[in-house]
Amino acid sequence: MGISRLFIVNRGEIALRIIRTCRVMGIEAVLAVSEADKDSLPARLADRTVRVGPASASESYLNIPVIVTTAKAVGADAVHPGYGFLSEVPELAEKCEENGLIYVGPHHDHIRKMGNKLVARSLAIECGVPVLPGSEKVSSFEEAETVVDDIGLPVMLKAASGGGGRGMKIVTKKEEVKSLFDSAAAEAQAAFGDGTLYVEKYIANARHIEVQVLGDKYGNAIHLGERDCSTQRRHQKLVEEAMAPNISEDLRQDIRNSAVALTENISYESVGTVEFIVDQDEGTFYFLEMNTRIQVEHPVTEMVTGIDLIQEQIKVANGEKLSFLQEDIAFLGHAIECRVNAESPEEGFRPTPGLISEWNIPQGPGIRVDSHCYQGYMVPVFYDSLIAKVIVCGKDRQDAIYRMLAALEEFTVEGVQTTIPFIKQILQSKDFLSGHVHTRILETLALVK
Amino acid sequence: MGISRLFIVNRGEIALRIIRTCRVMGIEAVLAVSEADKDSLPARLADRTVRVGPASASESYLNIPVIVTTAKAVGADAVHPGYGFLSEVPELAEKCEENGLIYVGPHHDHIRKMGNKLVARSLAIECGVPVLPGSEKVSSFEEAETVVDDIGLPVMLKAASGGGGRGMKIVTKKEEVKSLFDSAAAEAQAAFGDGTLYVEKYIANARHIEVQVLGDKYGNAIHLGERDCSTQRRHQKLVEEAMAPNISEDLRQDIRNSAVALTENISYESVGTVEFIVDQDEGTFYFLEMNTRIQVEHPVTEMVTGIDLIQEQIKVANGEKLSFLQEDIAFLGHAIECRVNAESPEEGFRPTPGLISEWNIPQGPGIRVDSHCYQGYMVPVFYDSLIAKVIVCGKDRQDAIYRMLAALEEFTVEGVQTTIPFIKQILQSKDFLSGHVHTRILETLALVK
Repeated sequence: MGISRLFIVNRGEIALRIIRTCRVMGIEAVLAVSEADKDSLPARLADRTVRVGPASASESYLNIPVIVTTAKAVGADAVHPGYGFLSEVPELAEKCEENGLIYVGPHHDHIRKMGNKLVARSLAIECGVPVLPGSEKVSSFEEAETVVDDIGLPVMLKAASGGGGRGMKIVTKKEEVKSLFDSAAAEAQAAFGDGTLYVEKYIANARHIEVQVLGDKYGNAIHLGERDCSTQRRHQKLVEEAMAPNISEDLRQDIRNSAVALTENISYESVGTVEFIVDQDEGTFYFLEMNTRIQVEHPVTEMVTGIDLIQEQIKVANGEKLSFLQEDIAFLGHAIECRVNAESPEEGFRPTPGLISEWNIPQGPGIRVDSHCYQGYMVPVFYDSLIAKVIVCGKDRQDAIYRMLAALEEFTVEGVQTTIPFIKQILQSKDFLSGHVHTRILETLALVK
Repeated sequence: MGISRLFIVNRGEIALRIIRTCRVMGIEAVLAVSEADKDSLPARLADRTVRVGPASASESYLNIPVIVTTAKAVGADAVHPGYGFLSEVPELAEKCEENGLIYVGPHHDHIRKMGNKLVARSLAIECGVPVLPGSEKVSSFEEAETVVDDIGLPVMLKAASGGGGRGMKIVTKKEEVKSLFDSAAAEAQAAFGDGTLYVEKYIANARHIEVQVLGDKYGNAIHLGERDCSTQRRHQKLVEEAMAPNISEDLRQDIRNSAVALTENISYESVGTVEFIVDQDEGTFYFLEMNTRIQVEHPVTEMVTGIDLIQEQIKVANGEKLSFLQEDIAFLGHAIECRVNAESPEEGFRPTPGLISEWNIPQGPGIRVDSHCYQGYMVPVFYDSLIAKVIVCGKDRQDAIYRMLAALEEFTVEGVQTTIPFIKQILQSKDFLSGHVHTRILETLALVK
């Protein structure tokens, strides 16, 4: 047994990221490409590309029957879903299993369970992991009101099948419950085909801290430290760092231990991320959700641990035992990642696809750029607007911030507008510089309309 | 006191490397450019550029009066010489001192002493550092013959003011002494304006191992581990790695300690490199020379220690104390650097200047590329042919080699021929893969004519 040909069902920087690890491991990388991506850098660098459909993702990267048939047709023995697209759709993992293909990710049961936020919440409770005061499924706004009476305002109405901020509404006044319940349910139904909602206590002065976990098929589970991803715009992460600044060592250990407890308890067998909300005022933390895939922000963890997470993900999918123990994991320095998007911050972050006429990425000590773009590349209109991740590692947080600012200063992109100037302003804000990150940090910046 | 504006007297990747650290440190970088370099990437990224002369290096980068006058005219408080050019010319350091400019490098006495190989040799002897059996200055071939009678063949005739392999001749038969003495003396006279020669025992099965040292103005001296630079072509390093593979821990410690002893003994106050020849058969080592500047291969040390050597170099020049002790230096993983040149290996490594029409550098975990090139850049005919350094770090040597091969595979350069295919062959050779590196490794490869 052994993966020798991997079918990559994704695009952009993560497709290239996976190709790179395939090369290091001596695995042949076959890349699924849509019509719009056939001239992309990953397409050029893959050992082979196969067209799986037109530009529209629903007919290409999201088309499970075509993906599975193609994987078999090219003689692949494994499928990697990347992040986004099919990476948390249990049916792909299931179809792979049925067709004798290794799915590079967790078992479909885990994807399914963690995909339902209510099921995930009860699994967390079973493992003794703290969850926010809240409810099971609420079927009507009246039920939601009863929960509000019980746990007090503010609360968050959340979609059971949710993710990425859709179907989420903050309720600060009881008279708003009805209208916000209706709009959240409608949004959830439209986005996920499931209008089920539940209620959770809303933490105003919150931080988003997540733990990178790794399990194998033999019941071993470890963590690779935590990441702080509090700097968000509309629940979309913009800046991520490892480790989390400004928390007590006790809290840090409790969060890590909770993540490992959950991972171990469910016999999770891949890379994954357990997300928590941290209440800064109370010094308490609560389970938010578990992402059953590689994350966009995984490189900050790679920078401080020296571990290639995609390689570990492939190895455990391949049935290998973890080659290190928790005590073998050492953390060195501080890493920060910034997501650079082709968007216009002045125009409400409108995407700015188009031809990149000049492209010079930053380089140097402690700098890493993960990007699928190049000079002459046409950023397509069809997909998300991420064009590069800039990752830096410094000896401490201060040093990492200086390196990131220097790197962003050096980054030259012409032809498409980017969020680089906007990110620089975040990094230079008083709150960010002082390590007082929180999920509403952008609201404190004058620049955000 | 404090460096706030640094005048960089160099070009290519090292100029950019220094600019990057200036940015991180908040130092204004003013770059000296020749007529041929005014559109270079470092010229674009410096805070300011000043033209110091025509393309010809002797009239620009090597023109001490112009450099010092310009440094003062732009209001710089310090001068960085990079490597090559004026980096080991004591007169620049001296003139800087006379003009109230901080020289980012050691005191001119150290440059001068270490620049004379015979003086360096006696300093090493004074510190108890082993040197090769050999002679003081020999004034005639007859004197050289007497030394040969004493220490036995083979020997190396070496230029006292030498460097970079020029003025060096291996003597394997006594009857060759006269003719090789004459040609070495003539070569040394032409290259260095000094025909003085000396004789040293020649080690056939040798390795080149060097130690990165760092001293401050308060007598503190530490090492940052060693590098193996055995893989050379005509005494020019091609592949460098940290740490040195396949040597006993005792030998490693002895070499490191010798380097620190020398550094400490002469009160050396900058970054420097102490080079040794290691006799693999005997397990012995001998002092070769000390380079009183930053080296081309410094990034491998940065990769395994996480320390920015240019930053440390600037700090100690600025009069700061070392901010760490020997025991604070931790080494993580294994790093390899490959030098990529614009040269044609098939045509005797003829330089191949010209327009780079396509340029995509490798990226990803553990990969760093230091380069001044970009898509659309014209590699000038006037200078050396180094166009990029590819540096990787892996968890061990094997992993680093795989990463390097994957990185080189990904590196796309069109328009100029490069040594990338040649370097790949070296890395895939049996001797290199097994860690049995030695200075004649290229002779074992069929590909080298």
